[in-house]
Amino acid sequence: MERWNVGVLLFDGVALLDVAGPFEVLSRARLEPGVESRHTEDNALFDVFTVAKTTQPVNATGGIVLVPRHSFADAPRIDLLLVPGGFGTRPLLQDSPTIDWIRTTAASARRTASVCTGALLLARAGLLDGRRATTHWGAFGLLTSLAKDVTVDPEARFVDDGVMTSAGVASGMDLALHIVEVLFSRAVADETAHYIEYRRG
Amino acid sequence: MERWNVGVLLFDGVALLDVAGPFEVLSRARLEPGVESRHTEDNALFDVFTVAKTTQPVNATGGIVLVPRHSFADAPRIDLLLVPGGFGTRPLLQDSPTIDWIRTTAASARRTASVCTGALLLARAGLLDGRRATTHWGAFGLLTSLAKDVTVDPEARFVDDGVMTSAGVASGMDLALHIVEVLFSRAVADETAHYIEYRRG
Repeated sequence: MERWNVGVLLFDGVALLDVAGPFEVLSRARLEPGVESRHTEDNALFDVFTVAKTTQPVNATGGIVLVPRHSFADAPRIDLLLVPGGFGTRPLLQDSPTIDWIRTTAASARRTASVCTGALLLARAGLLDGRRATTHWGAFGLLTSLAKDVTVDPEARFVDDGVMTSAGVASGMDLALHIVEVLFSRAVADETAHYIEYRRG
Repeated sequence: MERWNVGVLLFDGVALLDVAGPFEVLSRARLEPGVESRHTEDNALFDVFTVAKTTQPVNATGGIVLVPRHSFADAPRIDLLLVPGGFGTRPLLQDSPTIDWIRTTAASARRTASVCTGALLLARAGLLDGRRATTHWGAFGLLTSLAKDVTVDPEARFVDDGVMTSAGVASGMDLALHIVEVLFSRAVADETAHYIEYRRG
């Protein structure tokens, strides 16, 4: 199987763990169990990279600084679009270049997923209309107001209804492991969780 | 209570989630429950920042780039030293400036903690001699060889024996929540876990 390109959106005010949880899961996923297979990227199942409006450094909430690998203009093909959340999603709801990029990228990607309040950006781009979805518990009401006929599931760690959404922050790891399981197998997802010592729900 | 400064060591080949898990827990910990209290840093319980040998950008494993906030030379007082792991720990075992900085910083810090194979660096600095400790399951043997009379606990998510060590990657979140619990309360730690939707073990 051809390796999927995973594009992770970055922006000022992103929640670091929304990025890092799925990044660690997807970038460490391997068919071969154990530590040795993780020493090289040659056998990685995904090529995970960050994308932002520009390649200028981005301030995650709490004051940690990330440098995006690609800008919107120079990003390679994206098979899986991953939109993290954080307080920085709120101003982006009014940022047409970002919302347009999400809509366009999702249209050509094989799958689209959000972590936490990244779901608000998917909703604003019209991607959650008529779907079941979830987000951080503090944003259920806002999500409902942003998408037409969205059904919010307040109990799920993640929802896969064509477009995938996860609950808050740490649940992005459960969603990422779900993606590994769907594309590869339960065994590969479980072994990846074992490698990063994450307890699947 | 005076806010603790938390210095998180960065280096090439650090595991992103080793950094991001404790960063998210400690930087989002609040006495006041809910979302609003997290909108500002004014009421944060910890000031969490990154430190590296220099402030040049650092490549975490998988190809994500972080910019350290401080260099060894200009870092402020560190109350809690947090040493993450990753494949990049192996070359650092021979890097005297880093090992010396860890030893010196730990000597003046109130508490010292590692995530995953960050324990190897603590061991090399002599900080785990005669203690109980843990690390990623793939490095139990190496940890034993690096510290005098260390007792490795292969079952624990984390060990607090004067110096604190956690098991692999994601277990750094359990250790960080333990730190919140010890310094504040079980209720504050549980509410922080609820906020980031992490299920404590």
